[in-house]
Amino acid sequence: MLRAIKGDFIYAGDRQKLSAHKNSYLVYEDGVIHGIYSVLPAAYLQAELEDYEGRLIIPGLNDLHLHAPQYSFRGLGMDMELLDWLQTQAFPNEARYADIAYADRAYSQFVEALRTSATCRAAIFATLHTDATLLLMQKLEESGLYSFVGRVNMDREAPVYLCEASAAAALEETRSWIEHSLQRFHHTRPILTPRFIPSCTDTLMRGIGRLAERYAMPLQSHLSENPAEIALVGRLCPDSGSYAEAYARRGCLGQTNAPAIMAHCVWCDEDEQALLREYGAFVAHCPDSNMNLSSGIAPVRQYMDAGLRLGLGSDVAGGTQLSLFRAMQQAVQCSKLRWRLNAQTEKPLSLAEVFYMATRGGGEFFGAVGAFEPGYAADLLVLDEGEIPTPLEDELSLQQRLERYIYLAAEQRPLHKYVAGNKLF
Amino acid sequence: MLRAIKGDFIYAGDRQKLSAHKNSYLVYEDGVIHGIYSVLPAAYLQAELEDYEGRLIIPGLNDLHLHAPQYSFRGLGMDMELLDWLQTQAFPNEARYADIAYADRAYSQFVEALRTSATCRAAIFATLHTDATLLLMQKLEESGLYSFVGRVNMDREAPVYLCEASAAAALEETRSWIEHSLQRFHHTRPILTPRFIPSCTDTLMRGIGRLAERYAMPLQSHLSENPAEIALVGRLCPDSGSYAEAYARRGCLGQTNAPAIMAHCVWCDEDEQALLREYGAFVAHCPDSNMNLSSGIAPVRQYMDAGLRLGLGSDVAGGTQLSLFRAMQQAVQCSKLRWRLNAQTEKPLSLAEVFYMATRGGGEFFGAVGAFEPGYAADLLVLDEGEIPTPLEDELSLQQRLERYIYLAAEQRPLHKYVAGNKLF
Repeated sequence: MLRAIKGDFIYAGDRQKLSAHKNSYLVYEDGVIHGIYSVLPAAYLQAELEDYEGRLIIPGLNDLHLHAPQYSFRGLGMDMELLDWLQTQAFPNEARYADIAYADRAYSQFVEALRTSATCRAAIFATLHTDATLLLMQKLEESGLYSFVGRVNMDREAPVYLCEASAAAALEETRSWIEHSLQRFHHTRPILTPRFIPSCTDTLMRGIGRLAERYAMPLQSHLSENPAEIALVGRLCPDSGSYAEAYARRGCLGQTNAPAIMAHCVWCDEDEQALLREYGAFVAHCPDSNMNLSSGIAPVRQYMDAGLRLGLGSDVAGGTQLSLFRAMQQAVQCSKLRWRLNAQTEKPLSLAEVFYMATRGGGEFFGAVGAFEPGYAADLLVLDEGEIPTPLEDELSLQQRLERYIYLAAEQRPLHKYVAGNKLF
Repeated sequence: MLRAIKGDFIYAGDRQKLSAHKNSYLVYEDGVIHGIYSVLPAAYLQAELEDYEGRLIIPGLNDLHLHAPQYSFRGLGMDMELLDWLQTQAFPNEARYADIAYADRAYSQFVEALRTSATCRAAIFATLHTDATLLLMQKLEESGLYSFVGRVNMDREAPVYLCEASAAAALEETRSWIEHSLQRFHHTRPILTPRFIPSCTDTLMRGIGRLAERYAMPLQSHLSENPAEIALVGRLCPDSGSYAEAYARRGCLGQTNAPAIMAHCVWCDEDEQALLREYGAFVAHCPDSNMNLSSGIAPVRQYMDAGLRLGLGSDVAGGTQLSLFRAMQQAVQCSKLRWRLNAQTEKPLSLAEVFYMATRGGGEFFGAVGAFEPGYAADLLVLDEGEIPTPLEDELSLQQRLERYIYLAAEQRPLHKYVAGNKLF
């Protein structure tokens, strides 16, 4: 069905430039955009119109990295580094998802929070518990959000209660979960999810690589987050010159028709960057988490210049907030600190660039997503600027209104949210 | 009148340690605390009791640095560094306060936002407009908040519309404003406020130093925020070996009975730290602003170790948020990045340490403020944790509840707020 929305539209035209369309009409049909017009063309006069005149409308945000089971304990145990935090916070809490009643309670809260947030699409880690993972997928499917969800694989360097019985059993269980979820869900897709090299034996990791190939299925994992973790990978994988190479050698860097998402990439050197580019992998930049877990500041300017595929991740619960507006602020702030502390060699990220990452950059993982251009999915957020008081009577540009919203209304619920043309609220 | 409050109390016992009192009674009289008791002593049985059983109660937060006139344009023009930002954003917007109708509108919004925030006391920059500054002070007085407010002095390196007519005229106007406001207000006090060395001639700065001495009045300014600013001060003050020394030589580092607050201190070396310690100056650490304006990361661990007086500042509008919970998060995050990027030599700040800074550390500027101990002001916040959903059924400690609140509810309005024993809401 043909529909039109009226309002003040702004989106990332490319990596550096915002495209603003004041008082215009967005036309879409069956969830796919036809175009934006300052005057509604005659051919579209019969479209069903929703009038949000004067409201700022932006593409839905896309979260390339978060852990659903960790939503429950976000904001606790923050005075720790990655490996300690995993052992004392993440692992014991993830073990609770063996209890389906707990999973039901926890995932209901998580999905409701994500549904009412500004995020339209997400790539999500679950746990190794198949039943709980399917329950999460069911709830996401019902929410109207679009997502990739991963049953997490681990068979070493973790408490026994979070390790698969064996690599072979893990691969069989994963295969069966894939088959089941491919049949059962429409916009909630399975994604291969080896936690990271330290928690997967070579046998398991290579098996996952074969599954990726067999199903032409994307994969998500963690890469070069923390110096101690990187040193551990060096000891575990003497066959590889880098952490990224260790994934590549095991067929897990997206060497299929479907790309990989690598979260963090705080410490990737030129060689690792070259591998990421070669395989078209997405970098999920997670500045909140990288600060909380003392990981460092990712060289995002280098990734931009190298043409890597780039998106933002909240990384709940290494990050504490689902808000990707918050992640945009923090990505800019971290890049400014990196610039200042690194002899001013890498130019800070601009607001337009981080907005690109949160919309179009991350959206690319989901297909034609994150822009208001023909053929793109009709994912959009109608924003409420009324909660930000100002005595200024100057008329602000759409760019300024966007900047104000990102900095001042990061935690606010959008007024309306559409995913693939469906109005969620 | 003798009053008692029941609830779960937590405060900074010292710089490193939280002091928790579950299900206890805080007794106060005429705005001053008698003590905390797990059982209400017989002598206090006649106290009027307010029962907040099960609620988390913390001391009010104290903001050592913010610019009231900048509240209007926070979240705009954030892709700039300090000196450019001053010229294109701060100065033109501050000029609007020559118009008293604009000032009325803008300061009403600011004071209402501060009143409903978690901040109980603040040290505030106004502008050089005396009428608008008095209007701001009147509104703050009526709000029930306790504050120091500064009419800002500038007579160089700023647009002519923001410069005083002459140093002599500025000093006379400042003296008259001090006399007037000392008589007129009770808990809204004047504070000497030379903007910073670059915008004050030596004649003006020395005159301000004499006013500080004459009135035994505290002073607030900016110190060593940005490398370009520091270089400028070096050129402007060849008589001084450092930026802090330039203030000291002009009698503006708190060489009276009243201390100075120096905002930022991002780049203070050992010599500057020694001067700050010698004069008992307060460092107002403003991490949000220091990130937004690409200033850098202040060496707060060094200041802690050197025993400097330390508080937090929101620095609206270099910072975008009034929330000092947010500033606590960011102070921890910045210290973690500094640790990581500086060869792990300076231990990151703990949650207890930043909570100390926001309560007791900054509170010291206002007297016996920021702790639940005998003789301290009854400034307190009753918090609402109900907005943070969790599936966990484990009972959290008061420390964990505080951590969760700081990370997850930074923008939330407290349930109740008391300043010096007066309930604001």
